[in-house]
Amino acid sequence: MCGIFGMFGNKNASKLSYLGLYALQHRGEESAGIASSNGSKITYHKGMGLLNDVFSEKIINSLKGNMAVGHVRYSTTGSSHHKNMQPFIVYHKKGHIAIAHNGNLTNAFELRDILEERGAIFQTTMDSEVIAHLLTRSAEPRRENVIDALSKLKGAFSLVMIFNDTMIGARDTYGLRPLCLGKLDGSYVIASESCAFDLIQAEFIRDIEPGEILFINKNKIESVKPFEKTRQASCIFEHIYFSRPDSLVFGANVYLTRKELGRQLAREYNVKCDLVMPIPDSGNCAALGYSEESNIPYEGGMIRNHYVGRTFIQPEQGVRDFRVRVKLNPVRPVLKGKRVMVIEDSIVRGTTCRARVKTLRESGAKEVHMGVSCPPIISPCFYGIDFPTKKELIAAKRTVEEIRQYIGLDSLHYLSLDGMLKSICLPKDNFCTACFSKNYPVKLPKRASKYILEKNR
Amino acid sequence: MCGIFGMFGNKNASKLSYLGLYALQHRGEESAGIASSNGSKITYHKGMGLLNDVFSEKIINSLKGNMAVGHVRYSTTGSSHHKNMQPFIVYHKKGHIAIAHNGNLTNAFELRDILEERGAIFQTTMDSEVIAHLLTRSAEPRRENVIDALSKLKGAFSLVMIFNDTMIGARDTYGLRPLCLGKLDGSYVIASESCAFDLIQAEFIRDIEPGEILFINKNKIESVKPFEKTRQASCIFEHIYFSRPDSLVFGANVYLTRKELGRQLAREYNVKCDLVMPIPDSGNCAALGYSEESNIPYEGGMIRNHYVGRTFIQPEQGVRDFRVRVKLNPVRPVLKGKRVMVIEDSIVRGTTCRARVKTLRESGAKEVHMGVSCPPIISPCFYGIDFPTKKELIAAKRTVEEIRQYIGLDSLHYLSLDGMLKSICLPKDNFCTACFSKNYPVKLPKRASKYILEKNR
Amino acid sequence: MCGIFGMFGNKNASKLSYLGLYALQHRGEESAGIASSNGSKITYHKGMGLLNDVFSEKIINSLKGNMAVGHVRYSTTGSSHHKNMQPFIVYHKKGHIAIAHNGNLTNAFELRDILEERGAIFQTTMDSEVIAHLLTRSAEPRRENVIDALSKLKGAFSLVMIFNDTMIGARDTYGLRPLCLGKLDGSYVIASESCAFDLIQAEFIRDIEPGEILFINKNKIESVKPFEKTRQASCIFEHIYFSRPDSLVFGANVYLTRKELGRQLAREYNVKCDLVMPIPDSGNCAALGYSEESNIPYEGGMIRNHYVGRTFIQPEQGVRDFRVRVKLNPVRPVLKGKRVMVIEDSIVRGTTCRARVKTLRESGAKEVHMGVSCPPIISPCFYGIDFPTKKELIAAKRTVEEIRQYIGLDSLHYLSLDGMLKSICLPKDNFCTACFSKNYPVKLPKRASKYILEKNR
Amino acid sequence: MCGIFGMFGNKNASKLSYLGLYALQHRGEESAGIASSNGSKITYHKGMGLLNDVFSEKIINSLKGNMAVGHVRYSTTGSSHHKNMQPFIVYHKKGHIAIAHNGNLTNAFELRDILEERGAIFQTTMDSEVIAHLLTRSAEPRRENVIDALSKLKGAFSLVMIFNDTMIGARDTYGLRPLCLGKLDGSYVIASESCAFDLIQAEFIRDIEPGEILFINKNKIESVKPFEKTRQASCIFEHIYFSRPDSLVFGANVYLTRKELGRQLAREYNVKCDLVMPIPDSGNCAALGYSEESNIPYEGGMIRNHYVGRTFIQPEQGVRDFRVRVKLNPVRPVLKGKRVMVIEDSIVRGTTCRARVKTLRESGAKEVHMGVSCPPIISPCFYGIDFPTKKELIAAKRTVEEIRQYIGLDSLHYLSLDGMLKSICLPKDNFCTACFSKNYPVKLPKRASKYILEKNR
Repeated sequence: MCGIFGMFGNKNASKLSYLGLYALQHRGEESAGIASSNGSKITYHKGMGLLNDVFSEKIINSLKGNMAVGHVRYSTTGSSHHKNMQPFIVYHKKGHIAIAHNGNLTNAFELRDILEERGAIFQTTMDSEVIAHLLTRSAEPRRENVIDALSKLKGAFSLVMIFNDTMIGARDTYGLRPLCLGKLDGSYVIASESCAFDLIQAEFIRDIEPGEILFINKNKIESVKPFEKTRQASCIFEHIYFSRPDSLVFGANVYLTRKELGRQLAREYNVKCDLVMPIPDSGNCAALGYSEESNIPYEGGMIRNHYVGRTFIQPEQGVRDFRVRVKLNPVRPVLKGKRVMVIEDSIVRGTTCRARVKTLRESGAKEVHMGVSCPPIISPCFYGIDFPTKKELIAAKRTVEEIRQYIGLDSLHYLSLDGMLKSICLPKDNFCTACFSKNYPVKLPKRASKYILEKNR
Repeated sequence: MCGIFGMFGNKNASKLSYLGLYALQHRGEESAGIASSNGSKITYHKGMGLLNDVFSEKIINSLKGNMAVGHVRYSTTGSSHHKNMQPFIVYHKKGHIAIAHNGNLTNAFELRDILEERGAIFQTTMDSEVIAHLLTRSAEPRRENVIDALSKLKGAFSLVMIFNDTMIGARDTYGLRPLCLGKLDGSYVIASESCAFDLIQAEFIRDIEPGEILFINKNKIESVKPFEKTRQASCIFEHIYFSRPDSLVFGANVYLTRKELGRQLAREYNVKCDLVMPIPDSGNCAALGYSEESNIPYEGGMIRNHYVGRTFIQPEQGVRDFRVRVKLNPVRPVLKGKRVMVIEDSIVRGTTCRARVKTLRESGAKEVHMGVSCPPIISPCFYGIDFPTKKELIAAKRTVEEIRQYIGLDSLHYLSLDGMLKSICLPKDNFCTACFSKNYPVKLPKRASKYILEKNR
Repeated sequence: MCGIFGMFGNKNASKLSYLGLYALQHRGEESAGIASSNGSKITYHKGMGLLNDVFSEKIINSLKGNMAVGHVRYSTTGSSHHKNMQPFIVYHKKGHIAIAHNGNLTNAFELRDILEERGAIFQTTMDSEVIAHLLTRSAEPRRENVIDALSKLKGAFSLVMIFNDTMIGARDTYGLRPLCLGKLDGSYVIASESCAFDLIQAEFIRDIEPGEILFINKNKIESVKPFEKTRQASCIFEHIYFSRPDSLVFGANVYLTRKELGRQLAREYNVKCDLVMPIPDSGNCAALGYSEESNIPYEGGMIRNHYVGRTFIQPEQGVRDFRVRVKLNPVRPVLKGKRVMVIEDSIVRGTTCRARVKTLRESGAKEVHMGVSCPPIISPCFYGIDFPTKKELIAAKRTVEEIRQYIGLDSLHYLSLDGMLKSICLPKDNFCTACFSKNYPVKLPKRASKYILEKNR
Repeated sequence: MCGIFGMFGNKNASKLSYLGLYALQHRGEESAGIASSNGSKITYHKGMGLLNDVFSEKIINSLKGNMAVGHVRYSTTGSSHHKNMQPFIVYHKKGHIAIAHNGNLTNAFELRDILEERGAIFQTTMDSEVIAHLLTRSAEPRRENVIDALSKLKGAFSLVMIFNDTMIGARDTYGLRPLCLGKLDGSYVIASESCAFDLIQAEFIRDIEPGEILFINKNKIESVKPFEKTRQASCIFEHIYFSRPDSLVFGANVYLTRKELGRQLAREYNVKCDLVMPIPDSGNCAALGYSEESNIPYEGGMIRNHYVGRTFIQPEQGVRDFRVRVKLNPVRPVLKGKRVMVIEDSIVRGTTCRARVKTLRESGAKEVHMGVSCPPIISPCFYGIDFPTKKELIAAKRTVEEIRQYIGLDSLHYLSLDGMLKSICLPKDNFCTACFSKNYPVKLPKRASKYILEKNR
């Protein structure tokens, strides 16, 4: 899970990329990087941590050129390595390449095997290094080679690349991860989410379409759709949890979708309670929708501590469930003696959820009910969402009633699959629902369980 | 403006102080410090920055002893100095003292003059150094001396101190700043706000009363009220803006107060509009109250970026009002074509407010109205709230209509003084409203305009 | 033990102070600080660590004004506190003071007692804070007050201070610690050692004399000698070990003195050996002198590793005497089968010395003899040299023969007290030899064993 | 120019590698890295800066396994990139490789061209990445493949590598860079210089011979010499300047060699002077030799400041030749009125030399003569010594007389080529003297002027 950004044709390309990545920081907190180019030479800087830890004004100013691509990377357990920072850079006799990738290739392992057989060596476990090898395999850095290389990829890829004097944006045929195109004065912008455009006051033009490759250089912007067509299968979880509410994702606004998910939940379940409250901030919109539809008052029953960072010192003893408690504190007088309906965006492992429910009860809530704005997650994602293994997914092995008991709820209500799909103002067949339905749009490789490069080496 | 914390009688005193300060971080982001003692030796650590920047696990573990006091300090422009970090420590032949102070003494300058005349030297511009001098002036570190010293102070002071084997909590007779007492297992806790108790799962006992001094040592806890009695005049701005919504301040819950402020605003003004939205997060509760009372739907029309830190790089050119934009991004589809009622907790200078309103209009809002959950701020605070000088307070020099025009609103509605006071479920005479009414409860010194020590040297 | 520096009347005062302190870095590696002033306002920066860790170009440039004083502090075990960094700064209604002090007051404890009785409070355990209190006690910041204040000090003090628009240099009547005066273009410079003048290309004028106070302001430089006269008793250890060889200290060049100490050692002892080698770099000069006088070849038998810093990681096991070994490595082919005469400047505890001798033997030396360029150190220093307590001084409790056995030498030869004194081209009565003779020039206080402020609190 | 280290068969392999690199730090101050392995998994850490900046105890402890290779890299202007840190690591399906390389391949550019033609991509400009590609090109990670890969290399290479469960040490047929083998208890050690063995108390066994490859695994140590034999051409500059005096390099001790170079210089030139002094520390040994042979007294006429680090702040104005002055300060009383013979190890650009001579004159030296312990450097090195381009080499374009005038000497005396060669107790045909004679042992590529990968991309 990552955020990517690209800008072409602006003398402040790296500075605006920095700002664009700021708006995309929620897509990746582990590392950040920007590569810029004047068409002939790429300079770059990457580092572990938040954007602000990685970049200084001096560094941004040193990244010259009117093209830039940037990347923020999500922290996936156990693979937080310096070497896996993006953009991935290649200095090659055929030219210079910088690649920012969001998604997960399902055939990365196979491609890597083949490439290694042919003599390639790999220094990272990133899909983007595989893509770089494919790009430089062919004879010349022409359009056909790019098309040829990307044709070999299976799975999810939203890409922004610099290849010599050209910026390339591309999206897999399923449209699994978002990617959109914008314009700022005369220059083009590409970003994972439209909220990045808002920040730099760029204009949203359109999504880069599933299966589309855009070539942008100083003379023109050219679109090709060279891949064999498949059905669209965009990740519905972007709307449920991952994207920012102010973004337009796959053509729909996330805030409105989430409110509608909450409304639909209220339509599906009629829970007797005194107030509706979100787990902030991810449940805010759905809770608002639930409140409006059910006419039950909305309350901010828990207060979020904005200072909780990753280096927080945890006490070894004495304070139970501390990490959970420090992030969200209940407002006792609001909860005391009340039947509370809590709206969660989703339940993954269930452990944090359980601790929060306990806190709510200790704060005086008489009953704690929960509505979840998506169905039970029963299967892992192979296209870029960092769910844990099936073993750790609580809904993969327990019934709703068992989950309710585990979490300690008076009642638990998951949104139906259908209810979820009709809440988004887009064709329901356009979405991947594999994590809820096991219906994977892209055929999985035999070695699926170990498909991720990181887990193999 | 600061947050203070003290713990007596717990072997994890410094660790729990660290956690308590975490809950109080919103009261001061500039510097942090903790001093601990076993009754005979004080060790301490202080530093500039957020708690997490200043402390590591190793440092916390090095602060031994079963007593500790901690402090977080607010950033007031121009006086961010290392030397002004608290707690203030004195190693004296009469004993060891650590002082954490919240508030502003109005006679600090006079006291300092007198003390310097008598030969004292000062290394900081902090009120707490003045207090330290007074404490050590008298012959012995007995109770009478503490009472004698504190009797000389005028203005606002909430104090937690270690004096040899005793912890002392004290509050001025007006009760300007909050301070409350809690208990965790056998140990006593003192904090600016009750949210610090929640985090460490301590039990709230009661406020330390205006004019009360508490002496806590291993034998007993003793309360005295030695000062000449005055009326209570607690800072109402703690409820309006400064305290955390989950805190119990001056005996009332802040969340509920703020909701009631919003309700009262709706009762006072009947504005025709399609939605109510807060400036997050400070306006959240009042906006909810306004929505409930007015039956106009509540929406989260702006999304807060949680990653905006203090070292953010700002572009020199090209992106107008950037700092405002990066913090809050409007959700266009929610606002488009709508008559929007925005709820602000307060308006100080008006500049940020103006930029936000402009952003809302650019995002498609048809009309932008604003409700403010307090009256116009017309006069500075001399008791610890870091308002700018009168010259910079927009309401000190402009009428409401002029402010409305400056900010660019369709209509602007300030809560009435009376409406504000009756929204808090406490006697209205118990509050200081000087910033709204110029009715200062504590007589100001002649040199009031330059009363702050920091501005004199 | 510290290095101090002052500059008056140069617009680059703080920059040149930084450079001057660079040349004095050997006098203190623990902390560094510079305070500058334009005559009415003092700005300063202090920090723990080497000069280069503490200062950046930006910080230096922020220290404005045409006067500056600087300080580097030696690391004495157990008292490495932030609070003890110098210069010590006071902002007082009578004026602004910055004090840089080298030496140890023998009556600091008494003075502090008296001052605390009168109401003073102390935040550090530094002598300079005591001096600051004395300076501000009197009514006005006039010359008489400075003289009055300094008259109360007993023990060793070399001082450079800024007091409003005046720079003050002062030295105790014994002249225990060095202090000299130089000139650069029109501006005056004061430094612990003349090597600081060389670096900034200032001209050495003369030593500040024992008992002299210099007042430098824009109109004139004025010298007074107001104290009751005593005999001179300059610290001979400055020549033996502490000062840099290229410095002129107490009127004599250190390099030449050390060579003569070596020559004298050769005159006193006729040791049969094949080569003379120093413990680098402190024994270099004396070894050269010994070699010249004895006509035994000089060899660099051990190579110094220039990269050994203070944060070096030491292996827990497997490599014995590692810290000693990493700093100096023997050159085996030079030592193999040879009778080696090793020249040490002094022996304090004897432990490091012992490890080195062992290494020399393991590297093939047939015999290891040692010459020490001073007599046995039998008593602690109360005037600023950080010798350990008497208990740890190897020569305080063992005979030379016992020391020889402990260190593992074939023979051990200490320079005689007389030999040492006649090696310096200065009157022998001008020196303090207390650490060799127990003949302390300044009467010790009753509480001498605990005289250091740091050890009391 | 770099230092390399390897250890096989010791549970403290990474810790001992750290210590070994400490002894080799003079061979590279720019970056440092260590990779360790248990035979199946490689972990590593690399960073910019000195060893102490890059490694902490925690990091060292995290590098598990009984094999480790380490590297310190020299700072060559303009190519200080994170990406060029070593060891170079490859995770490949055929196995795991860690490569530490010292030297310069003369055909790196050609090899890279060929490899890129075949599809390889490069992320660094290091020779070691080229070597990695060659190693993984062949079908299996067997001995033959290693031999095959290394056979393609031209130029200078001293290598230590981990390849799965085997440690490999190798040296080019010319033996250009040093590499030696040692033993510590049961484990094998490989290092650039023997001083690394001394520090960890390992025993020196022998040099790895020119053209030799050592394969070390848990069963055996095996030596092969598969390459076509050439003459030996070891870098004589290692003895003149680069290696540490306490090292045994190419079979001879460096200290003794340097002394002999000084003696030979005295035999070749009879300069009338009062004292001989080195430019410390590189000229120390030769100056001692000169002094002994000529019977002119040796003096330490300049004192080295041990605190000069790389981040030193330089004054913009006022202090001429500051960087030169801060590093070495003359001892005036030693020099005053004297005819001084200064011994330098070598003269490259001549600029620093000139500034020092000026300083010596300003310090009172009556005459300044210079002896250089090698002949004029007239041609660049293509095998790893970071000389500047020919254009910048002062002796490439000026006569000795012109150099003398430029530097400002009374007389200048370069050691003769023959004199230099006979000073080392080794066959004179065993050395590369190309920088003095233009007689390059390895044929240069056509693109020699741009042969360095770093300069091409």
